[in-house]
Amino acid sequence: MSLTVVGSIAFDAVRTPFGERERMLGGAAVHFSLAASFFTEVRPVGPVGEDFGGEHFELLEQRGILTEDIERVPGGKSFFWRGRYEYDLNLAHTEDTQLGVFAEFEPKLSPGSREADTLFLANIQPELQRQVRAQCAAGFSGLDSMNLWIESAKDSLQAAIAEVDCLVVNDAEIRQLTGESNLARAARKVMELGPRAVVAKQGEYGAALFTRESFFALPGFPLEDVRDPTGAGDSFAGGFFGYLDSIDGDLEEANLRRAMGYGTVLASFNVEEFGTERVSRLTREEIDERFEHLRGMTQFEGLTAASE
Amino acid sequence: MSLTVVGSIAFDAVRTPFGERERMLGGAAVHFSLAASFFTEVRPVGPVGEDFGGEHFELLEQRGILTEDIERVPGGKSFFWRGRYEYDLNLAHTEDTQLGVFAEFEPKLSPGSREADTLFLANIQPELQRQVRAQCAAGFSGLDSMNLWIESAKDSLQAAIAEVDCLVVNDAEIRQLTGESNLARAARKVMELGPRAVVAKQGEYGAALFTRESFFALPGFPLEDVRDPTGAGDSFAGGFFGYLDSIDGDLEEANLRRAMGYGTVLASFNVEEFGTERVSRLTREEIDERFEHLRGMTQFEGLTAASE
Repeated sequence: MSLTVVGSIAFDAVRTPFGERERMLGGAAVHFSLAASFFTEVRPVGPVGEDFGGEHFELLEQRGILTEDIERVPGGKSFFWRGRYEYDLNLAHTEDTQLGVFAEFEPKLSPGSREADTLFLANIQPELQRQVRAQCAAGFSGLDSMNLWIESAKDSLQAAIAEVDCLVVNDAEIRQLTGESNLARAARKVMELGPRAVVAKQGEYGAALFTRESFFALPGFPLEDVRDPTGAGDSFAGGFFGYLDSIDGDLEEANLRRAMGYGTVLASFNVEEFGTERVSRLTREEIDERFEHLRGMTQFEGLTAASE
Repeated sequence: MSLTVVGSIAFDAVRTPFGERERMLGGAAVHFSLAASFFTEVRPVGPVGEDFGGEHFELLEQRGILTEDIERVPGGKSFFWRGRYEYDLNLAHTEDTQLGVFAEFEPKLSPGSREADTLFLANIQPELQRQVRAQCAAGFSGLDSMNLWIESAKDSLQAAIAEVDCLVVNDAEIRQLTGESNLARAARKVMELGPRAVVAKQGEYGAALFTRESFFALPGFPLEDVRDPTGAGDSFAGGFFGYLDSIDGDLEEANLRRAMGYGTVLASFNVEEFGTERVSRLTREEIDERFEHLRGMTQFEGLTAASE
């Protein structure tokens, strides 16, 4: 199985109460790809500048990520984001965004990326998402977005959402998109557009999954040390879609729930350190151990049942 | 088994986008008692005014609630609260609070209330909570509070918390009380004061349970029709402590988790209609049915396992 993801490949400057980094590898497609790489073959699609060097390709390739669709633009500069978080890490402030080579991006997928079984459209301009969707034959697809596109390109975004199987966005964005404050109703309205499943990311509260027949939710994994929330949502999506791709996109309820668990686990590792630091040296054993831990934490039967 | 609860017995005027009521029975001790009454014998303690009539006593008594410690003050007026909710029901505004007979309240527990097995100190002035705690021999006790007391009576509140087994407050209040933005750390700090368990109420996101050894969380039950959130937290506490009292305050992990489930279920019924309207005509069968529904919603194994 294989998974294509399109989205930002970036450098981030991040300051939190627990430290700062002036320039580190980041971007939605990077966090997503690293998380998904524990489950399947991943192909990130997106442009980078000349500042994107061999060591950055290597960080991805050492996780088995296929980088042939990362387009290095001569003379260009990579997408750059600068942000800071308050003592309450839920409060984030963007201080600078430079699109760089992303401003001129015209997606052209390689044959390998076109033939992927699963496609994830990370948060970029909805028309670009649609161009990528049109090029990829994937039988299972997902999409993330943000308030900027709801406000500035709602029609395009709704068209893009109609073309995927699963929407994965923050809960506030589901409300904003649908004009419906009740999340269960809002999720139903999204499904009326097309998707079979809606995942509401809820930050430290975890994530909720809506399908036409069911509801499931997981809390965020309770960590005492969170250093940098950047990329948590993309890591969640990477774990979620990576796992589903690895089982052939079988959306049986129990599989969707396990995917929610892997998403939660990958997001939790991601925030333990800055940027990609923790996930880039993670092991599948650590993931499975935390997954079982999370499962035990969410069973009514308690610790005994969980350790069986 | 029996359960004593001290807290406000009030009239509420509530306006939400889905309707309004000019004067309905409310208050923390009322919502708590109704919820707990499905599990055990409940004894609310608190003052009311002459405006509290036979029909209000009857509403409680028809649920088997023992009202001998509801003190009717001649010439007095009952506690009154007026509030409204925005279209986003998470946004509440208090428009008026009249303490009435609560301003002069000096708790004097009857022998029956003193000998209860379980005690819940709903949100009132911490020194009153301590007076009640000192009069009650209960082997298992819980406490709720609010930002007002953290700001104006922190020392008293910390002393009151030290004297109970379980703190049940909003997550923002746990952070405010401890000065710690990470919830897991904040909960640990509360347990260092004395309690063995901390429940963080998280509004529509549900609730999280921290003990020294474990973590558990449940989402709010996903409802498409929420009409009035007033009393949801008190109904949660009523379900939680009512269930634990009914099983002799056995804090074994699986019991705490079931208690979280009953709390979640009672809170969900409470918000379906205004004030006490829904819970006062609820049945134990409906509770158990929703409990099983909730259990199915939170199992990794999905619907099949849940329906076994």
